[in-house]
Amino acid sequence: MMRILGVDPGTLITGYGVIDEKGKNCNLVDFGVISTGSTMSMPLRLRIIYKELIDVIEKSTPDEFAIESAFYSKNVQSTLKLGYTRGVSILAAALREIPTSEYSPREVKQSVVGHGNASKEQVAYMVRKLLKLEQSTDIPLDATDALAVALCHASKRMRPRAQVKSWKQFVEEKPERVKS
Amino acid sequence: MMRILGVDPGTLITGYGVIDEKGKNCNLVDFGVISTGSTMSMPLRLRIIYKELIDVIEKSTPDEFAIESAFYSKNVQSTLKLGYTRGVSILAAALREIPTSEYSPREVKQSVVGHGNASKEQVAYMVRKLLKLEQSTDIPLDATDALAVALCHASKRMRPRAQVKSWKQFVEEKPERVKS
Repeated sequence: MMRILGVDPGTLITGYGVIDEKGKNCNLVDFGVISTGSTMSMPLRLRIIYKELIDVIEKSTPDEFAIESAFYSKNVQSTLKLGYTRGVSILAAALREIPTSEYSPREVKQSVVGHGNASKEQVAYMVRKLLKLEQSTDIPLDATDALAVALCHASKRMRPRAQVKSWKQFVEEKPERVKS
Repeated sequence: MMRILGVDPGTLITGYGVIDEKGKNCNLVDFGVISTGSTMSMPLRLRIIYKELIDVIEKSTPDEFAIESAFYSKNVQSTLKLGYTRGVSILAAALREIPTSEYSPREVKQSVVGHGNASKEQVAYMVRKLLKLEQSTDIPLDATDALAVALCHASKRMRPRAQVKSWKQFVEEKPERVKS
């Protein structure tokens, strides 16, 4: 069994979801949203997000951590702020030595719904279905997005991706396979 | 007297510098660079930056924290990654409850050199001059940039800027001054 914490970080609301994966079955463990006010200072917001994520990690003791990596944002300022939240989320996992994976929104939707342009509602529908929950179960959309990231990670774990990310990394890791 | 920690965060190298400000005089306390390898995973890099900044904070016990806010970057991916580093740096100060200020590169150069388009070398020259150091003193450019952020904060403290950042904040802070 593998316990996965999925996180969908945002500048105002960060969703999280914890699932247990056992073969093809996934079960809901916990979910929630961390809200920070738009008038709050950035240091305070980051502190709240970090501390709440550390609480979730200590309570649910996940084996792995999956986070949504947004590739697009309105402008440079909002991209930078999204980066703050994501950096702090990744740090929380890193300080607790939990292996971290990143998935693009498109990968998450592709994995959970079957196509990369699915709406948040379609994602939420499939999240409830995959976790065998009633469709009436009350889960905020930011939390279903986070659970989708965790489910995406669970499915990728079943069919591992190539681990080599670049030629440089390949050369460093497998020097014996490079002809001199 | 006020002790200021200035940080110039980057995706590969984060510079820091600590100064003591007493009236118009500023003295060097400490400086350094935190280097992370380009082949290191992002969680590991963030952990190193966070832990080293926490060490600097514990060692030098600054009263205030100033950070350079980059408004421009090559592309969305590099902006997001710069956001990670900045978020983690701000978090380190926030968790130790050190008040944080942000300055744009232009503001820092304007304050230290006198014009917003100064080169790193011009900044380094003025940093040594303002801190009454020999020009031969060996300080890496990422650290002189960080010391410049701290010096910028020291000079702004002498001439405080308006603290109100938006109309919304103004209304919330001073409801008595808004006609109903």
